[in-house]
Amino acid sequence: MTASSLPRSIEWVGELDGFVRIIDQTKLPTQLLFLECHHVDTIHEAIRSLRVRGAPAIGIAAAMGVVLGVRQASEEDGDRAALVERVKGACDYLATARPTAVNLCWALARMRRVLADHSAASIRDAKNLLLREAKQIRDEDAAMCRRIGEIGEPLILPGMGVLTHCNAGALATAEYGTALAPLYLSHEHGKPFHVFVDETRPLLQGSRLTAWELGQSGIDVTLLTDSMAAALMKTGKVNLILTGADRIAANGDTANKIGTYGLAVLARHHGIPLYVAAPSSTFDLATGRGDDIRIEERGADEIRRGFGVLTAPEHVRCYSPAFDVTPAAFITGLITERGIIRPVTRERIAAVVGRG
Amino acid sequence: MTASSLPRSIEWVGELDGFVRIIDQTKLPTQLLFLECHHVDTIHEAIRSLRVRGAPAIGIAAAMGVVLGVRQASEEDGDRAALVERVKGACDYLATARPTAVNLCWALARMRRVLADHSAASIRDAKNLLLREAKQIRDEDAAMCRRIGEIGEPLILPGMGVLTHCNAGALATAEYGTALAPLYLSHEHGKPFHVFVDETRPLLQGSRLTAWELGQSGIDVTLLTDSMAAALMKTGKVNLILTGADRIAANGDTANKIGTYGLAVLARHHGIPLYVAAPSSTFDLATGRGDDIRIEERGADEIRRGFGVLTAPEHVRCYSPAFDVTPAAFITGLITERGIIRPVTRERIAAVVGRG
Repeated sequence: MTASSLPRSIEWVGELDGFVRIIDQTKLPTQLLFLECHHVDTIHEAIRSLRVRGAPAIGIAAAMGVVLGVRQASEEDGDRAALVERVKGACDYLATARPTAVNLCWALARMRRVLADHSAASIRDAKNLLLREAKQIRDEDAAMCRRIGEIGEPLILPGMGVLTHCNAGALATAEYGTALAPLYLSHEHGKPFHVFVDETRPLLQGSRLTAWELGQSGIDVTLLTDSMAAALMKTGKVNLILTGADRIAANGDTANKIGTYGLAVLARHHGIPLYVAAPSSTFDLATGRGDDIRIEERGADEIRRGFGVLTAPEHVRCYSPAFDVTPAAFITGLITERGIIRPVTRERIAAVVGRG
Repeated sequence: MTASSLPRSIEWVGELDGFVRIIDQTKLPTQLLFLECHHVDTIHEAIRSLRVRGAPAIGIAAAMGVVLGVRQASEEDGDRAALVERVKGACDYLATARPTAVNLCWALARMRRVLADHSAASIRDAKNLLLREAKQIRDEDAAMCRRIGEIGEPLILPGMGVLTHCNAGALATAEYGTALAPLYLSHEHGKPFHVFVDETRPLLQGSRLTAWELGQSGIDVTLLTDSMAAALMKTGKVNLILTGADRIAANGDTANKIGTYGLAVLARHHGIPLYVAAPSSTFDLATGRGDDIRIEERGADEIRRGFGVLTAPEHVRCYSPAFDVTPAAFITGLITERGIIRPVTRERIAAVVGRG
């Protein structure tokens, strides 16, 4: 099996009267359950409850959610202003599902632009144009992830051990993922390698999602707790570290899932290259450096009650940043759909992702 | 409250017809449940099931278990050989509860020696001597932990942030603990400081036990996942790292709970001193260096089903070493009951713990 034979994290089934089908990621890895969304409310809930997660997948879900929200608009009255208002309402509503997700806003902005760009279209045509745009956002993401995979693939040498953290995989995107894309491509081409997956506390995206999707695809996987990564590196079995990114500042400082910074320090100590894979849309050139990235603090119960069971004193104070920032100097290279940025400098970043 | 006002992890209640009372650590932090052990089987099960854990506490439990195992030996026949045999049987049996625990064997050897050292004692007296020895093992451990606390206390400066990993506390010992002893002493003396506790996957001794016992004692605690320690260090809030040790080689390389080595690398990168606290009995001078320490591999389900719930693909392979080895060069100092070994060199270790 390959990444492209994995069930899709999210897709639109049928035409305008169809529906959105997503893998309910909260049920993995014990159940592969598909959620059919026929209404915008279902999409909103799915995003809010992390049934669909990963910045690109959230953007796709939101775009498709807009279509669900407007397709029942009456068409006979031909009231274009009402449709515009309805799209805006759906976008404003969906934007509240995960307030800090950049891709969510970006996808919704694209959907809003569709009507403006086709002001002469009939209401029926406008709805179909919205659906086409949502499908295109998905297809573009799939193509971009595949491109990241092609560009990153030469880094994976036969027999390598590759460590990854969190889930920057097929589930988080339309297909292939970002950090996992070079692995899926290598696997498609029959290259042997081994993947070590950090479980990624507190929400265990590594054990629940990454270990699942790689395993489903027939890739050799070993799971470990985050605290075991250093000992594993010391054994010499890790030759490369690949992670995704939530936001990359203009100087290359990278915000990613909590734990990435620690891996980067350990990687440098052990002489292991660390690459970050992300589409150019993850670069935030308006943010000069990592210190300017605001880090979201998560609720204490994600630590105290890992999966419903109280495993700590009920009211103990917790430190629970969602992300950390890895300084550019610790990153060997940034794999984008436009090429690998290596070494990671402000100038090279501007040259590769600064244009359009 | 202070450490000495915490309920005791293990104690013998009453005289020869009394019993062993232990805190059932598998029920913490949600329930403080005392287990009364009247039979050697109950002690065996408690050690095996980690109801009592921590090398010193296990040693104490085993010693007391021997008393439970032999006190019903018939006394009227005066058959000393039968008593010797019974002690040997109890020791052999208890040694199987946690086969790799060094303190367990050490405590059992002490119990066996009692009979040899008092060959003229009556059966009744011999049993009381065994009980006295078991109580003494407990009291000596409490005194030794307190001494480690006194010696380590000057390292804790007012207002400091101290990070610890796993549980090297009162629960793991007779009282005070090893790594936590300097903190308890500082707290008794009214010194203000803050403790950051790694949850310590996979078995969560940090969140379940350390956060609980420090909190019970009125010490300020913040809990974090192991993956958050690096980001926390970067904030500058950690001024000192204190851990315990499972085994220290002649050159100072230290085996301790998995995750310690990673902390040590991170500590060096951030310029934070790391001290290891352990009694001289933890030094294994017959083992030249860390590479010679055999590392126990734990069952995969500790990772896959860490919270009682399956949170990973059911059959995914796991890497799960119980311990890792921190090279001596990463350890600022070793706090023992005989003084602080600093810098950590083979010569200084031999000078401090090499004698008897």
